[in-house]
Amino acid sequence: MSIRCEQSPDEVSRVVRCWQRGGGSVGLVPTMGALHEGHLSLVRASVAECERTVVSIFLNPTQFSPGEDLERYPRRLEEDCRVLGEAGADLVFCPAEQTMYPPGFCTYVVQEGLPERLCGAFRPGHFRGVLTVVMKLFQVAPAQRAYFGRKDFQQSVLIRRMAEDLNVPVEVRVMPTVREKDGLAMSSRNEYLTAEQRRQAVCLYEALAAARRLFRKGERSSERLLGKMREVVAGFPAARAQYVEIVDPDTLQPVRQVGEDSVGALAVCLGEVRLIDNMPFGECPDIFLGRDS
Amino acid sequence: MSIRCEQSPDEVSRVVRCWQRGGGSVGLVPTMGALHEGHLSLVRASVAECERTVVSIFLNPTQFSPGEDLERYPRRLEEDCRVLGEAGADLVFCPAEQTMYPPGFCTYVVQEGLPERLCGAFRPGHFRGVLTVVMKLFQVAPAQRAYFGRKDFQQSVLIRRMAEDLNVPVEVRVMPTVREKDGLAMSSRNEYLTAEQRRQAVCLYEALAAARRLFRKGERSSERLLGKMREVVAGFPAARAQYVEIVDPDTLQPVRQVGEDSVGALAVCLGEVRLIDNMPFGECPDIFLGRDS
Repeated sequence: MSIRCEQSPDEVSRVVRCWQRGGGSVGLVPTMGALHEGHLSLVRASVAECERTVVSIFLNPTQFSPGEDLERYPRRLEEDCRVLGEAGADLVFCPAEQTMYPPGFCTYVVQEGLPERLCGAFRPGHFRGVLTVVMKLFQVAPAQRAYFGRKDFQQSVLIRRMAEDLNVPVEVRVMPTVREKDGLAMSSRNEYLTAEQRRQAVCLYEALAAARRLFRKGERSSERLLGKMREVVAGFPAARAQYVEIVDPDTLQPVRQVGEDSVGALAVCLGEVRLIDNMPFGECPDIFLGRDS
Repeated sequence: MSIRCEQSPDEVSRVVRCWQRGGGSVGLVPTMGALHEGHLSLVRASVAECERTVVSIFLNPTQFSPGEDLERYPRRLEEDCRVLGEAGADLVFCPAEQTMYPPGFCTYVVQEGLPERLCGAFRPGHFRGVLTVVMKLFQVAPAQRAYFGRKDFQQSVLIRRMAEDLNVPVEVRVMPTVREKDGLAMSSRNEYLTAEQRRQAVCLYEALAAARRLFRKGERSSERLLGKMREVVAGFPAARAQYVEIVDPDTLQPVRQVGEDSVGALAVCLGEVRLIDNMPFGECPDIFLGRDS
């Protein structure tokens, strides 16, 4: 079960290219570590669809704004490697920070428009850091497919757009959100929650689910669906909504008339902990842990 | 001598990957067309060093600022393809503008610091356009080596930095400037010059050469070497210097004490035509057409 853990980009490139020459397809799962069932669902998808799976574990400093939780973000490389081995991954890429960002580093991947929406409006520079590190990972480990979680909805839209715009030969696969039994989306940041905050953290899912129920009864006004979402969050005294939106899945622009492909998305703070969640109004293949499906 | 000319990025990718699988090395020469001896020297270097050579011809709109010469930039694809076939290139990639920048395109590669120096100070957005299109070309045609002309000095520094920062597995080869007999660096923009402007266009080379002569006599003060360069340009009444600098070859920052690796660089306007040139103070392998070497 012991998995190979490699710090050197050159060595990872060598191994991946060697696999490719053998004709096998390669899947890449970029992570920041502190792995949970959401990450593992991505790894299992890659293992099922590709002959080899590379998981990167890199707590990327450039996607944290000053004052955010970089310092306290959970780190547990050894345990992460153990579960990745069990899940069938073939290689862990865990570079040092100074390897990824050596002195003189000055190149970034940016987007116009999309990163200013939703989370981007509250996390300046966040998506520049995400796009830059993911582009680097795409070059180090040139996989046929890369796996991202639907929970980070805006991120998945931006990365898909980047791959298309910059002609990166990778299929960006966006996989269903994995949720706790009560609906809370899995996130490494859930560990920060106190017991009381954890109980109230279900407000994100409850708000999205309530709006979906209204939609299924025929409501199409974004104003009224947003009103329902805000009302649900307001019912949780510890929760403070940062944004509540219903957007087009490609442009991330607010919609007036809600359709099956429209996406409800929100960010909520519980004390110092900032959580996000989203859901399409049409078919939604989310996975609930410990629930009969 | 007829060379294959391909508009489709997917098809170019397929061909290049097919070559790679056969074990052959691939060279990429990005150009905007209107090819001259400078471009052909890059093609010949690639043909000599790589088993296959791809030349891209794409007049990249994103690297032209509003009001620049995009509209009048010379276009002659048929003749370009003919000389590329004669030079031994294997494939021309000549995509349509809407293929490279489809509706919704919003992703760019940027750098902090370096693009603000030299030409970048006078051409806002220019290097963002250059880096973005070159990154796209690196993805479409994943070559082992890519060839750029030393004449576009700042461009070559930025592209090398980008490849390193974003882990692009390509060797960036920067080749000697090719000059006319009188020293004028080859450029597609030389075609804009009137006969009188053409005569005075030698001022860039003369300024660099004069400073180098002073340097070889022992002068190390950038102030005095810059003074000499400005004095030479001032002797040409049609020429208006945009910048005259002596910089570090990696940081592009001005130097006080000039060394062998310091680079003299200048931009000069002759009427509407903007020309650039540069030269290191140490060894300089420039090629002079029609001179005995």
